[in-house]
Amino acid sequence: MDKIEHIGIAVKDLEKSNQLFASLFGEKHYKTEEVLSEGVKTSFFKTGPNKIELLQATNPESPISKFIDKKGEGIHHIAFAVNDILAEIKRLKEEGFIVLNEIPKKGADNKLVAFLHPKSTNGVLIELCQEIN
Amino acid sequence: MDKIEHIGIAVKDLEKSNQLFASLFGEKHYKTEEVLSEGVKTSFFKTGPNKIELLQATNPESPISKFIDKKGEGIHHIAFAVNDILAEIKRLKEEGFIVLNEIPKKGADNKLVAFLHPKSTNGVLIELCQEIN
Repeated sequence: MDKIEHIGIAVKDLEKSNQLFASLFGEKHYKTEEVLSEGVKTSFFKTGPNKIELLQATNPESPISKFIDKKGEGIHHIAFAVNDILAEIKRLKEEGFIVLNEIPKKGADNKLVAFLHPKSTNGVLIELCQEIN
Repeated sequence: MDKIEHIGIAVKDLEKSNQLFASLFGEKHYKTEEVLSEGVKTSFFKTGPNKIELLQATNPESPISKFIDKKGEGIHHIAFAVNDILAEIKRLKEEGFIVLNEIPKKGADNKLVAFLHPKSTNGVLIELCQEIN
């Protein structure tokens, strides 16, 4: 794993949180994107080599709705950049981690992504992501 | 804020979690440290320009004990590296954030640190940290 690609933060109101995080970082988000398959609207902030992704649910079935219902707003996942997502999925399965997407799926920000079940990672939802060339 | 300096993860059993995260990253932690004032034992992993800090409570009054009692194991805080922590504290207070340590305190890993209250930051506990020269 090369670096923390981004940290995903679940928010109720993207517009309000965009303002809050702009005050925090002293810089506005640089893009927004809707991921229909996940039922989320997202925005991205740069912080040096890393990004912060804010996620707002667009329907009650979205994983972000369920997360906020259960835990409230806050950190949702950590995404690590990998060079070869298929090789990493294979390696991590062999190490005993529960991989939720054995076939990576298309995520936000032009990435192939796969998640590890928090049950196998000390309660942390981990995303692997590889840039699509 | 220059980059994500580290992500802090609350764990129940540091030794067990050190093994888990070593399997995840394919690399062992590179140091451990006890912070008496916070009632925690910590270990650090490198992931490119960022670090992952695992935190285990050493007493029931530790903030990490209380966090785990309430929320279970998982992501505890995000730490951002700053160049001038006093200037950042002043700026963030003026922006309306609740700064928990107006006078920064000594944290792990040779840092001066200050926390922002999650109430003012979308449920995210944020640490500012500046390397002590």
